[in-house]
Amino acid sequence: MKGEGLKIVISGPSGSGKGTIVQELLKQGDYKLSISATTRKQRTGEIEGKHYFFKSKQEFDSMIEKDEMLEYAKFCNNYYGTPKEYVDNTIKLGHDIILEIEVQGALQVKKKYNEAVFIFIMTPTFKELKNRLVSRNTESMDIINNRLTRACEELSLFKEYDYIVINDNLEDAIREINTIVAAEKLKSGRYENFIKNVLANQEA
Amino acid sequence: MKGEGLKIVISGPSGSGKGTIVQELLKQGDYKLSISATTRKQRTGEIEGKHYFFKSKQEFDSMIEKDEMLEYAKFCNNYYGTPKEYVDNTIKLGHDIILEIEVQGALQVKKKYNEAVFIFIMTPTFKELKNRLVSRNTESMDIINNRLTRACEELSLFKEYDYIVINDNLEDAIREINTIVAAEKLKSGRYENFIKNVLANQEA
Repeated sequence: MKGEGLKIVISGPSGSGKGTIVQELLKQGDYKLSISATTRKQRTGEIEGKHYFFKSKQEFDSMIEKDEMLEYAKFCNNYYGTPKEYVDNTIKLGHDIILEIEVQGALQVKKKYNEAVFIFIMTPTFKELKNRLVSRNTESMDIINNRLTRACEELSLFKEYDYIVINDNLEDAIREINTIVAAEKLKSGRYENFIKNVLANQEA
Repeated sequence: MKGEGLKIVISGPSGSGKGTIVQELLKQGDYKLSISATTRKQRTGEIEGKHYFFKSKQEFDSMIEKDEMLEYAKFCNNYYGTPKEYVDNTIKLGHDIILEIEVQGALQVKKKYNEAVFIFIMTPTFKELKNRLVSRNTESMDIINNRLTRACEELSLFKEYDYIVINDNLEDAIREINTIVAAEKLKSGRYENFIKNVLANQEA
């Protein structure tokens, strides 16, 4: 059964390793990545339509107004969002698309795409999350503590997600996500046409 | 994540190969099989609590009355049903249990166990279903045609199931069911205690 691709929303606290997981899925598997739009200035080396869709503030506002954004947020005076059109076109071509989105954005997406697959990535323990953030050695304890508070808030919303993947080991996490995607493709909702055809061709 | 076992309801038309699939799952995997109760007389070689739980009509009626049957039906003047207790005890021990039940029974089970995993087995085409029934060479065309009519009725209820597995090839079908079961174990609903513990042990 081929058909439309899946929309796979992946969230997880800072330090959960979701970025690495997404990069590994893109490398190993047959996934596409959703491309964000932003009002931030294009930087040297960044390619339009690959790293971002670069938009003026007016264009971004207009996309919001026309309901062309799956979710958006303001960060450091710039807007970031997920254009619906790119996602829709990608799944129509049969590709599974990954949307790496923080929890509040994922909840916005859920309102528009209830049929998307929502996966939450977490470390085995909270302590482990802290260790990973600390061992990066790039942020002050203030920032780390902010991230941990946010992780706590995000974790309390786990029920909004369909699946939890505990990233104890990258290989296992990747295998689990591939398993989820394979099972989702066997969901009865995707077999409407198949059943219709079977019933219409009883003598064929 | 261990926890409770899954309740896996498997249905499919006569000729879909669901019986072979279930036997193969039991042989290869770590599954238990739900044991039916019946008012039919115990036959030589049949073992109480293995092949069936043998019950008098009074006992069976009393189980229905006490809501101890997940589903039941009358067939050739005998009652057949699925006792709830055996299923509940099995999953509490962490075993995944398979309930091989025809569609009407499955719909009864769904009312009691909405959280169970419902899998519908079908051949790739209707013609193939017919071929398999004919090639058994054990039944008259009248009986085969009855079975095909029933298959058609059952197929039209496919949306009541969570997943469809097309049994084109036994090995693939087994792998798909194992994939479904693995993915179901990653469902967020099973992680309530995990998240609770993570949040309660932020300093641990």
